[in-house]
Amino acid sequence: MKKITVLGVTGSIGQQTVDVVVHHRDEFEIVAMSAGRNIDALEEIMKQLNVSHICVQNKEDKEYLENKYKDCHFYYGQDGLMTIATLPEVEIVLNAIVGFAGLLPTMEAIKAHKDIALANKETLVVAGHLICPLVKEYQVALLPVDSEHSAIFQSMNGENHQDISKIILTASGGSFRDRTRDELADVTVEQALKHPNWSMGAKITIDSATLFNKGLEVMEARWLFNVDYDDIEVLIHPESIVHSMVEYQDTSVIAQLGTPDMRLPIQYALTYPRRQPLINGQRLSLNDVGSLHFYKPDLKRFHALALAYEAGRQGGSMPCVLNGANEQANSLFLNGRIRFLDIERLVEDAMRAHEWVDHPTLEQLLEIDQWARDFVLKRVGED
Amino acid sequence: MKKITVLGVTGSIGQQTVDVVVHHRDEFEIVAMSAGRNIDALEEIMKQLNVSHICVQNKEDKEYLENKYKDCHFYYGQDGLMTIATLPEVEIVLNAIVGFAGLLPTMEAIKAHKDIALANKETLVVAGHLICPLVKEYQVALLPVDSEHSAIFQSMNGENHQDISKIILTASGGSFRDRTRDELADVTVEQALKHPNWSMGAKITIDSATLFNKGLEVMEARWLFNVDYDDIEVLIHPESIVHSMVEYQDTSVIAQLGTPDMRLPIQYALTYPRRQPLINGQRLSLNDVGSLHFYKPDLKRFHALALAYEAGRQGGSMPCVLNGANEQANSLFLNGRIRFLDIERLVEDAMRAHEWVDHPTLEQLLEIDQWARDFVLKRVGED
Repeated sequence: MKKITVLGVTGSIGQQTVDVVVHHRDEFEIVAMSAGRNIDALEEIMKQLNVSHICVQNKEDKEYLENKYKDCHFYYGQDGLMTIATLPEVEIVLNAIVGFAGLLPTMEAIKAHKDIALANKETLVVAGHLICPLVKEYQVALLPVDSEHSAIFQSMNGENHQDISKIILTASGGSFRDRTRDELADVTVEQALKHPNWSMGAKITIDSATLFNKGLEVMEARWLFNVDYDDIEVLIHPESIVHSMVEYQDTSVIAQLGTPDMRLPIQYALTYPRRQPLINGQRLSLNDVGSLHFYKPDLKRFHALALAYEAGRQGGSMPCVLNGANEQANSLFLNGRIRFLDIERLVEDAMRAHEWVDHPTLEQLLEIDQWARDFVLKRVGED
Repeated sequence: MKKITVLGVTGSIGQQTVDVVVHHRDEFEIVAMSAGRNIDALEEIMKQLNVSHICVQNKEDKEYLENKYKDCHFYYGQDGLMTIATLPEVEIVLNAIVGFAGLLPTMEAIKAHKDIALANKETLVVAGHLICPLVKEYQVALLPVDSEHSAIFQSMNGENHQDISKIILTASGGSFRDRTRDELADVTVEQALKHPNWSMGAKITIDSATLFNKGLEVMEARWLFNVDYDDIEVLIHPESIVHSMVEYQDTSVIAQLGTPDMRLPIQYALTYPRRQPLINGQRLSLNDVGSLHFYKPDLKRFHALALAYEAGRQGGSMPCVLNGANEQANSLFLNGRIRFLDIERLVEDAMRAHEWVDHPTLEQLLEIDQWARDFVLKRVGED
């Protein structure tokens, strides 16, 4: 029985993690979980699973729950997150918190010798230079939950790192894949939220449309798999069937395929190196799919991807600026305050204005993240 | 330095094995090799590599070579094959002999504790029930050289056998993929020999056109990977880029891709579990390929594949009948004595006429193979 803490349980990944656990009660137990402010969704999950330790964002919600459920331990805020990420009985922390906020609990969990199933890509994008040495020092496993990184991880099974010549990340191209750059000027939030293949949270769906999501994945892959940016390629693959690939030095390419279902990478991170049946999982029929298409993304059309490579190659504090500015701009777009192409323009402006730091500490990262957000707000006159 | 015997060195696989070894002289040494009657090709290989032990088919050729090359040991015939397949210094025997003739040297090599790189699929098709227990008893490695089986083998790297739910063998569809059954009646040898993707020997190119080759591969996969016929699927994939796939119980599918180049599976069998650069190998560009197509084969159109599943499921002596009859019919077609659709008709007739044996011994297999060939010759009035 694997004992799990799930951070961000009411989000899309968190809910699907619950689904996996509910179908494998003899394999997994969620002993602790965190939610933000969606207490209704949290209570729904509490009906399905007996979870002893629960953290929410606000003190008021914690007190409300405490009065209602007498058998659980409740916590709140950043301290609460740290507590449930480091509980002695927990073996693995599945971190599905969205954005930069996922960084600190990941670090604390590693220091408490927990394995990490990482759905929060910002952790590595912003602080890969801090996380990777920690993972090594504390000898924990860092297991990807993103479908692309899980595909790469699966495609490296039994292989030697020295034999890897290239990682090929596939990208659906997002909601606006087939629009020209001119056509992007006036797209609406509603249109951006219609992802062709994946059902995901709002933030990541917008990031898919801009391709900042793929850019963050490139940076995450750089840290997860210890490869150079020159050896990470992005290919547009509209069908989202080939989830990613690894090319080896003998020209052999290993790929992982499947119907788009986030429960698979979630479950694989929990069962690795074994596999379990995916309950209600849909088997891939390539006969039904018929054909798969691949082409290189136009980096002028998908400028966000070019910015991500640039920030990644520069390293240091630049990925933190890209990420913080993007989080802020993404949120402004979702709230109807800016237009779609403003997102990448604001991110680029923040990158140009930033005073680069080579090897930022955690404290510096927190400051730089805040600076990037403030910069974006100031630019659009919302500070 | 891995010391190798190559059986069938002048054939397509043999020549490409020489190419791999020539480019990795510090890794591999061919200490012994066999050829049939193509002495010119053999002498060309002798110019490229210093090989100490050489076996040919005929005594006259052996004597001719003996007089010409004083530094080598020469052998001939079946006894010679046995000798070079079991030389004490040899670690691995790459068996690229075409057809049923590859069976005996494989068995002797296993008994001499040699690892086997198997390009001769008939060995397992006909005698999997004898070979697999031997492999287990002598604890040798049985490494596939076929591109499809190598792909499956690579897709199983680091995985657990219990987690496998299905093997998906891809098939180019051969020279006549897009012809209707009616259109097959009058096709010529020359047309059949034009394979769309692979450059291979004549026998296997005809087998690709009938799909008997895919049928033999299904049976080979059953033994190599210990899976039921119900869990082996064939998909037509015209581009021959995805060389085969494995589906796991969590619905994840792992695939191996690459440009069609037989040197890759040859080299992988020799370097496994590591990889080496494939000299002059062409890296796959999915951007250039653009799209990949897949569809289920029509078993009425590709009747040979249905016959192979039937023979495989029945087991015992039936695969030997299918193989022997096909080898004879294939040869008759190549020599212009029968028409294309006669091949599968003759094979089916032999299967219907055969008195089935449950667990044939090696001696029985030799007899049944001969019976199947004679049956085909008699049917076409050539005995």
